[in-house]
Amino acid sequence: MRQLVGEALRARRAEQGLTLREVSGRARVSLGYISEVERGQKEASSELLAALAEALDVPLSGLLRDVADQLEIHEVGSRLASVSPISSDEVRVSAA
Amino acid sequence: MRQLVGEALRARRAEQGLTLREVSGRARVSLGYISEVERGQKEASSELLAALAEALDVPLSGLLRDVADQLEIHEVGSRLASVSPISSDEVRVSAA
Repeated sequence: MRQLVGEALRARRAEQGLTLREVSGRARVSLGYISEVERGQKEASSELLAALAEALDVPLSGLLRDVADQLEIHEVGSRLASVSPISSDEVRVSAA
Repeated sequence: MRQLVGEALRARRAEQGLTLREVSGRARVSLGYISEVERGQKEASSELLAALAEALDVPLSGLLRDVADQLEIHEVGSRLASVSPISSDEVRVSAA
């Protein structure tokens, strides 16, 4: 989920054509921290997420929905994989 | 948002008729920690949220949507308040 939060933030930033530096200035959060959050390396607190959502001019609920949508794709993927007659191990073996 | 995450977790737990102790056992997370998260006093990490979602038998995406829905209600409320001709202060004064 941390990874998906980062991806959602980066996608919204790209949509707005903003640099990390611009978001950092607007949100008053260090550039390095935002960069780590975007790469899924650091957990974003609720306060940070709220500040970033405001800086990106997106409602926090919209950002959470971005994450939920991506999570759901992963969840459906995992469910499909678990009922598939071919396991990912077998795929790896046959591809080798 | 932290508050709303806690409320969403508590609502899902109530729906399932589970006690804090049961969720704690299933998620292998201390009861005190879950209780603090439910009350919005502690931030839940991505890993904790994933463990709690699994313990509550709800997809993590569903839990995030619960939070997004509640957040949206708050966001709309704030927007309405900001355009209302009567400020909450005035309401308070006239009610006094």
